[in-house]
Amino acid sequence: MSESTLSKYPTTGTYRTILQVVQNCNSFEYDPINDPECQKLYKFYIPDNPTSDPTSNNSEKTKEIMVGLLDPESIPALESFNNNKNTDDEPPVFVIDHTDRTLKFAPHYASTQQSRSQIMSQVLTTLKSQNAWPILAKWRNEKYPVYGKTGNLLLSMERAASYTFGIRTYGVHINGYTKTASPSSSSSSSSSGEEIKMWVARRSLTKQTWPGFLDQIVAGGIATGYSMIDTVVKECEEEAGLSPELAKNAVAAGTIQYFTRSQYGLQPETQYVYDLEIPENIVPKPNDGEVGAFYLWSLDEIKSRLLAGEFKPNCAVCVIDFMIRHGHINGDNDPEYLKIIDNIHVPLPMPGPSI
Amino acid sequence: MSESTLSKYPTTGTYRTILQVVQNCNSFEYDPINDPECQKLYKFYIPDNPTSDPTSNNSEKTKEIMVGLLDPESIPALESFNNNKNTDDEPPVFVIDHTDRTLKFAPHYASTQQSRSQIMSQVLTTLKSQNAWPILAKWRNEKYPVYGKTGNLLLSMERAASYTFGIRTYGVHINGYTKTASPSSSSSSSSSGEEIKMWVARRSLTKQTWPGFLDQIVAGGIATGYSMIDTVVKECEEEAGLSPELAKNAVAAGTIQYFTRSQYGLQPETQYVYDLEIPENIVPKPNDGEVGAFYLWSLDEIKSRLLAGEFKPNCAVCVIDFMIRHGHINGDNDPEYLKIIDNIHVPLPMPGPSI
Repeated sequence: MSESTLSKYPTTGTYRTILQVVQNCNSFEYDPINDPECQKLYKFYIPDNPTSDPTSNNSEKTKEIMVGLLDPESIPALESFNNNKNTDDEPPVFVIDHTDRTLKFAPHYASTQQSRSQIMSQVLTTLKSQNAWPILAKWRNEKYPVYGKTGNLLLSMERAASYTFGIRTYGVHINGYTKTASPSSSSSSSSSGEEIKMWVARRSLTKQTWPGFLDQIVAGGIATGYSMIDTVVKECEEEAGLSPELAKNAVAAGTIQYFTRSQYGLQPETQYVYDLEIPENIVPKPNDGEVGAFYLWSLDEIKSRLLAGEFKPNCAVCVIDFMIRHGHINGDNDPEYLKIIDNIHVPLPMPGPSI
Repeated sequence: MSESTLSKYPTTGTYRTILQVVQNCNSFEYDPINDPECQKLYKFYIPDNPTSDPTSNNSEKTKEIMVGLLDPESIPALESFNNNKNTDDEPPVFVIDHTDRTLKFAPHYASTQQSRSQIMSQVLTTLKSQNAWPILAKWRNEKYPVYGKTGNLLLSMERAASYTFGIRTYGVHINGYTKTASPSSSSSSSSSGEEIKMWVARRSLTKQTWPGFLDQIVAGGIATGYSMIDTVVKECEEEAGLSPELAKNAVAAGTIQYFTRSQYGLQPETQYVYDLEIPENIVPKPNDGEVGAFYLWSLDEIKSRLLAGEFKPNCAVCVIDFMIRHGHINGDNDPEYLKIIDNIHVPLPMPGPSI
């Protein structure tokens, strides 16, 4: 029996299969045609002006597109904000349609990225002060982008409210690994007889979200205006004390993409995945209080901890994607290989960025 | 200007972006709710008996599932086969519903994998002898599997007819590459200053399909009953003269999955992708007449040939997936990165295998 089952740390439960671990993260399918649960959600629409030109909203051609999904429980707070604001000189902020189940900005605020972002900031600051949504206590002071169909920025809003509005979010996850000489020919050995081991972080017990769970050595959200590699280098230094010289060697390796439903709301998310080979003489160090400890483990050890539910759910998916790309999980050793991959790369119903 | 534009070899046209190259392969979206073109297709249904037990079809619980999609132009040949067969002692083979647009085996043949496979073989042999579908001239004498929801085998049928019935197909593609010392720090260099080059095959000008186009060094379909790694080793020897000792070092690296529509029909396909590092002193050799030549090219050279349309469309996708996994195409250098990845991993509306 693995040490993990005796752990003092929390888990998300135990799993029989890797597919179950992946589906614990990709826990939601948006199927409004067939699924009554999906039909209950409120669709958040924004006019998809191709530029931030204030005059572009004059065109009747501007199409509204769905950029988010809200649980019905989140609507009353927006409605009461609306009613309080409904005076002669301050029109209501939102147009809420309970038949079509849509949420839109009122015309006065809807026309530009700037006007939408500004009023959204005001709404969220007020709701936080009223303690209307508990999740706003986790205020991050970090702005997340919302994109239109051509990758144009439509809105920038506080990260803590992203789940509530069900907007797409983006992050980077870095798989830190080492290659060590290995006499065995296990499935995690490369052709040159090297064994891959992976660095894993234990999240600090004082962290706001998922305290005590296992994580990539470095991960972070991508705020409005940051490039991927800038985010990688910044987070490597902040979270693991890795130098920019080492961090810039991180190799982009694709994305993972999933749709999570949790107590906090709906989260359609894309993570840009990087692999970073760490020389054997370098040991990551907790640098900002977000990480409790780092471990260097074999892929077999990590697999047993995945099944024991010790990983933060989306970090588990990132590790599984690494194992798939490096042959440790393959079409001959996991009968659900194709279903696992389908659940790591799901299409999302909202548009994403262009650079 | 690249040499390729002066090539004597065929192309699929030129492309401005990598996304266009990917969408030339992933050219079809099955959206029967909104797309009238999809509503014209005939859905091929089979009872999804969980085992091949002949008595299991007695259960009224056996659900029919869609395993294929046919162009309406393919239906008359099946209908006239049906009519010719409709005598007292030989009932018609198919039930064809022109209102619901469904194709099913008649009850007499529908009950087991064996009975379905046997009558399908008889149908296709007859249609080939009648020259009913031109594609049957490309008869391969190789059986392709059709699966139910739990990965159970429902039908095994001649490969040449797979596009006509629009069943899911499976193959392996092997990216052969070398690492050479590189003084530059280009995006295809690894952290240790090595440059990745890729082996590419030129398909023989006498090949039945896609003569003269560029391809992976090794690729092949997975026939009923073969494992992935067995297929890799077999094809490496047959197509490139690579020894089993070398070929078994191929590292599984995930899948690519796309839906192609072409003159031959509909092709929802999954390729199991392998990366094989080839030592610098080993040169692949055309071994079975399927390959005209092998080239070792930089990733930049290969990218220009992708945009010039010189690759067989699904081989282009395999190369692009390799470039994504090795950092050559990334979120900072291609504005359509997320759309490219979405088009390389599409969900398919038919079930796949379990092992």
